[in-house]
Amino acid sequence: MSEKLICGVDLGGTKLSAALFKTDGSLVGKDTIYDHSDKEWDDIVASIAGLVKGVMKSCGVTAEDVLGIGVACAAHIHFKKGMIVTVSNFAHNIYDYPFVDKLSAHLPGMKIILDNDANAQAFGEFMFGAGKGYHNLVFVTVSTGIGGGIIVNDKMLRGKVGTAGEVGHSIIDIDSDVKCTCGNYGCAMALASGLFFPDLYRMHLKKGLTSTIGITADTADQMDGKAIEDGMKAGDPICRAIVENSADVVGSTLYNIYKMLDPELVILGGGLMSFGDMYMNRIKERFMSHTHEMMSEEMEIKLAETGRDAGLLGAAALVLE
Amino acid sequence: MSEKLICGVDLGGTKLSAALFKTDGSLVGKDTIYDHSDKEWDDIVASIAGLVKGVMKSCGVTAEDVLGIGVACAAHIHFKKGMIVTVSNFAHNIYDYPFVDKLSAHLPGMKIILDNDANAQAFGEFMFGAGKGYHNLVFVTVSTGIGGGIIVNDKMLRGKVGTAGEVGHSIIDIDSDVKCTCGNYGCAMALASGLFFPDLYRMHLKKGLTSTIGITADTADQMDGKAIEDGMKAGDPICRAIVENSADVVGSTLYNIYKMLDPELVILGGGLMSFGDMYMNRIKERFMSHTHEMMSEEMEIKLAETGRDAGLLGAAALVLE
Repeated sequence: MSEKLICGVDLGGTKLSAALFKTDGSLVGKDTIYDHSDKEWDDIVASIAGLVKGVMKSCGVTAEDVLGIGVACAAHIHFKKGMIVTVSNFAHNIYDYPFVDKLSAHLPGMKIILDNDANAQAFGEFMFGAGKGYHNLVFVTVSTGIGGGIIVNDKMLRGKVGTAGEVGHSIIDIDSDVKCTCGNYGCAMALASGLFFPDLYRMHLKKGLTSTIGITADTADQMDGKAIEDGMKAGDPICRAIVENSADVVGSTLYNIYKMLDPELVILGGGLMSFGDMYMNRIKERFMSHTHEMMSEEMEIKLAETGRDAGLLGAAALVLE
Repeated sequence: MSEKLICGVDLGGTKLSAALFKTDGSLVGKDTIYDHSDKEWDDIVASIAGLVKGVMKSCGVTAEDVLGIGVACAAHIHFKKGMIVTVSNFAHNIYDYPFVDKLSAHLPGMKIILDNDANAQAFGEFMFGAGKGYHNLVFVTVSTGIGGGIIVNDKMLRGKVGTAGEVGHSIIDIDSDVKCTCGNYGCAMALASGLFFPDLYRMHLKKGLTSTIGITADTADQMDGKAIEDGMKAGDPICRAIVENSADVVGSTLYNIYKMLDPELVILGGGLMSFGDMYMNRIKERFMSHTHEMMSEEMEIKLAETGRDAGLLGAAALVLE
């Protein structure tokens, strides 16, 4: 095979996918497994290597045909050292796990890059999605949690260790009593992302708002993004308040990104964007309400375009950085 | 003269200085005037040109000996266009004023760079101060207001227009009822900087705290940084609360900078740092209290080193960028 390919691996708590793409971003082959996350980490790495080899074999390519492998992982990453600093979505926690070295032992001679999943999605959007043609952008994923990735002058801004772009954990309500998984109070993530919808639902009940869909403090745990969306459509005032407040927090977070980085574009992705136009419009309105006369050229806000395989494609794209 | 010099101009609401430096940052000559800020902008520009020519003459150098002129201005700057978007510390407001073109007309053939004063100070600290030898840092000035400048890979991060680094206007208390000069509520600047100390003093009085130095709502306007520092030393509980809360807000702001950019170093400058070790230590403690186990390599926090002429030196340094 004369045309070189790029390989992406998306390592999440639920599924583990590997795929080969052409350098224009078109998919060549893909495979997914779901039984990895309970394993010891050395075994997870072995599963990844097996998955990559399997995809290569079924596509009829060898290591020489592949420019490199990009791995996107929902974790704190030490980019330069190729290490996972810590994770939370897997059965076995790890600290400073030398991921790239471990995977290299299974796939000798192949270039391997490990990065945070939001960084990978940011780079995928920059190369093949809504960020094509831009040079300075921020990608924000609003989903179970909130993450982000920053492109400055056509390159990922990773910072000293590689944790730059963690916009979800920036504190936006210094007096909040809503605690995030990170241990802090008032992070954007704790006030706006899906993981906290049950807590927020209970908080609204406690404040005296009435659930019109029969949810109580005991049953609020079922209020994930989909349930909140359904509840909002059914006219439940708590679901509406949660969605509106989430949009406001995301909008103010975009303003903080604007003040810090003055990017050309912010791209919004992640599951909660399926709340639709009402959600996106409210985010934009909140953002604009902060700018007053300080913004001489408008910062664009767009929806992500790379879709369901954003993490995979983004991971593969890192090989081309 | 064989050794080339760099020229810095510091254009503030109170004073206007111009100075020549060697490229190692050592001062060659300097002049300052104080009667500029009531003038029309074309006349301010003429004053700057006169001041620069005067310093050059008294140092015995010609335009050929000067690599360029960097101008630091306390304003919103459109960097690429060399324009002042808007100012607030001068008698005459302006919008999209073509500053570089205007000054060039007085100083033909000389390279002129216009930037925000906090960016200039950031670059000065990077070249000659606490940031020497670092590649990725953020400078934050805590003073009458709060401003900042960002260095990524040895270059200023300016963003699309040039307003990046405005950390003071990032919103850190989304539910705050303290209004900033920018029009928003709950900016770090409104909760922590000198300009708002009278408002904050009145707020604490209203909440029921007692002034032990005889300040009332009517006399709170005199509570600038110096008065707050004196009051704290005299044991006034409101002054202490304002200083402690300011440190907490700055500490949380540094955490947000860390989450966004993961820099090697944050440099703190500006008048309020004269509050001393108690203030700096509380900022650091607050910062560290947010990091939990997410920080695998410590971000350094240092005091600025370039001192009283930080703006001037920083402006001149921009010529070497």
